[in-house]
Amino acid sequence: MTKPIPSVDQRMPTHGGVLRAAAKVAELLPQTPLLPLELPGGETVWCKVESLQPVGAFKIRGAWHRLTDLTDGERATGVVAVSSGNHAQGVAWAARRLAIAAKIVMPNDAPAVKLAATRALGAAVVLYDRPGGEDRDVVALRLTSASGATLVHAYGDPWVIEGQGSSGVELAAQMKCLAGGPPTRVVTPCGGGGLASGLVLALPDAEIVPVEPEGWDDVARSLASGTIQRVAANAPKTACDALQTPATYPINFAVMASRGLKGLSVSEAEVRAAQRYAFSHLRLVIEPGGAAGLAALLVGKVPADGRTAVILSGGNVDPAAFAAVISEV
Amino acid sequence: MTKPIPSVDQRMPTHGGVLRAAAKVAELLPQTPLLPLELPGGETVWCKVESLQPVGAFKIRGAWHRLTDLTDGERATGVVAVSSGNHAQGVAWAARRLAIAAKIVMPNDAPAVKLAATRALGAAVVLYDRPGGEDRDVVALRLTSASGATLVHAYGDPWVIEGQGSSGVELAAQMKCLAGGPPTRVVTPCGGGGLASGLVLALPDAEIVPVEPEGWDDVARSLASGTIQRVAANAPKTACDALQTPATYPINFAVMASRGLKGLSVSEAEVRAAQRYAFSHLRLVIEPGGAAGLAALLVGKVPADGRTAVILSGGNVDPAAFAAVISEV
Repeated sequence: MTKPIPSVDQRMPTHGGVLRAAAKVAELLPQTPLLPLELPGGETVWCKVESLQPVGAFKIRGAWHRLTDLTDGERATGVVAVSSGNHAQGVAWAARRLAIAAKIVMPNDAPAVKLAATRALGAAVVLYDRPGGEDRDVVALRLTSASGATLVHAYGDPWVIEGQGSSGVELAAQMKCLAGGPPTRVVTPCGGGGLASGLVLALPDAEIVPVEPEGWDDVARSLASGTIQRVAANAPKTACDALQTPATYPINFAVMASRGLKGLSVSEAEVRAAQRYAFSHLRLVIEPGGAAGLAALLVGKVPADGRTAVILSGGNVDPAAFAAVISEV
Repeated sequence: MTKPIPSVDQRMPTHGGVLRAAAKVAELLPQTPLLPLELPGGETVWCKVESLQPVGAFKIRGAWHRLTDLTDGERATGVVAVSSGNHAQGVAWAARRLAIAAKIVMPNDAPAVKLAATRALGAAVVLYDRPGGEDRDVVALRLTSASGATLVHAYGDPWVIEGQGSSGVELAAQMKCLAGGPPTRVVTPCGGGGLASGLVLALPDAEIVPVEPEGWDDVARSLASGTIQRVAANAPKTACDALQTPATYPINFAVMASRGLKGLSVSEAEVRAAQRYAFSHLRLVIEPGGAAGLAALLVGKVPADGRTAVILSGGNVDPAAFAAVISEV
């Protein structure tokens, strides 16, 4: 009954799959807002506000596309997901809606709001010891082996990639209406590369810029070197819990490399400044990882013009952590 | 050259005027999002998120409708507005866009973010001494007398009322699509009654519920007694700076009374709890006054069902004040 962790061997995600995911998501959820934002230099960029999804992050898209494509037999045996919190909530939300049993493997240092929200959505939460070095994929494999449940990987899954890409389909339609044309550049937070690879497939003519926290820039180094690199064992602490992935998967890497993406990284202070900018200029609560793309734009690491978009990918942050960020001068 | 402060004598706002305002706003700005929100009791209500307007509040609507209807001569002599900050920014934003000179009279205890944002929009800010008891309408009259400028009153103006009502037109269209029908009940923060009276005109078949801070419930008392009442001179302090209006105007009162509205009030603690709920469940920054309607729903002062909407009217709040609210247990 053991299912392998989905990989490039399973199937490749496609542009057609992204469109199919977008059609399914459009029946389920209203488009997330696209808001103009003036940068300090005077340029206006367009913010795709995925933090306003029902679970506070874009992850609901991939989870919905994946779970709705399960067979009746697969639905009956349930799903397992591994996540620091946003994918967890996305899978739990979709599973509850489809009456599928969900077990979610979460790190014991995940933000309390994310743990509580995942449980509130009816999922069974299984903790693993992230600081202690326990491998989350091993925990997940143990659970799927025991139950025959389907693993819904947070990024290394073709359905998940296509589902996340549905945000790019919405973005293109909204920018045609509001910005005079589809985006020529999309700056996005990047953890494992699920969203970035989905955007690549969704937007064949746009430059996609994945942004990672400093020290967690394995995707940027992988793209630069041509082979998948891992985050160093002694990687620095980062507030961007949603972007703490040890390495991208072959399926994501193949898509991102096929378009010659270049990644970059931002510091913790730059991320906090972006959270404060979104607070004061957009009145939005953005979690650290969700603000990484905006951080790169604010410090000029990526050029900006009226056809540049940025994904504000999530807003699940503990109140004390957010209070500290906005109180910092 | 002195212009009287607009009142019921000038003209009455109309349903047709609301529709005309909505058409103008639709050409200018995307609809603000409508987000579902599950209350602790399990009911889902619909949140019209006006804090996501470019200036962080619905006030941009009335200002735009008013300023675009000025004659060329009126545009040349400029406008004056009086506001604690959100109407100020709305008028300043519209004036800059239309190249009209704007003077804004603001209280010296307005939130720093609102003062800074109004100045950043290019308006000349004139401070008056609110705690010292100076009358803002007198300051405004002095300015309009000297310059011949047009006063754009924050609520006692038919164009402003019609403009704010455009939010109700959007709300009805969005709820038909997402909630199966237009709202049967709309709960709204209420200061002078500009938004509440606009919603009355926009939504002839809905119950409109204006919500004020405790001790500032002059509109509720006016509606209950049948004549305009004032806030007591010794009214308690409130964090809801946007709702600190001494009394409604005849033009607002006439519209609200014509539909038999009943107002109610919420405590400061209830307002803060609503800000925290919007933070954690919607990832939105809502200012105290903007959360008054949600506060009433959360404590069950207004019944809620799937056709109930609430206006989250603004999100301009100083970081330190917001940090204190979300840090409170």
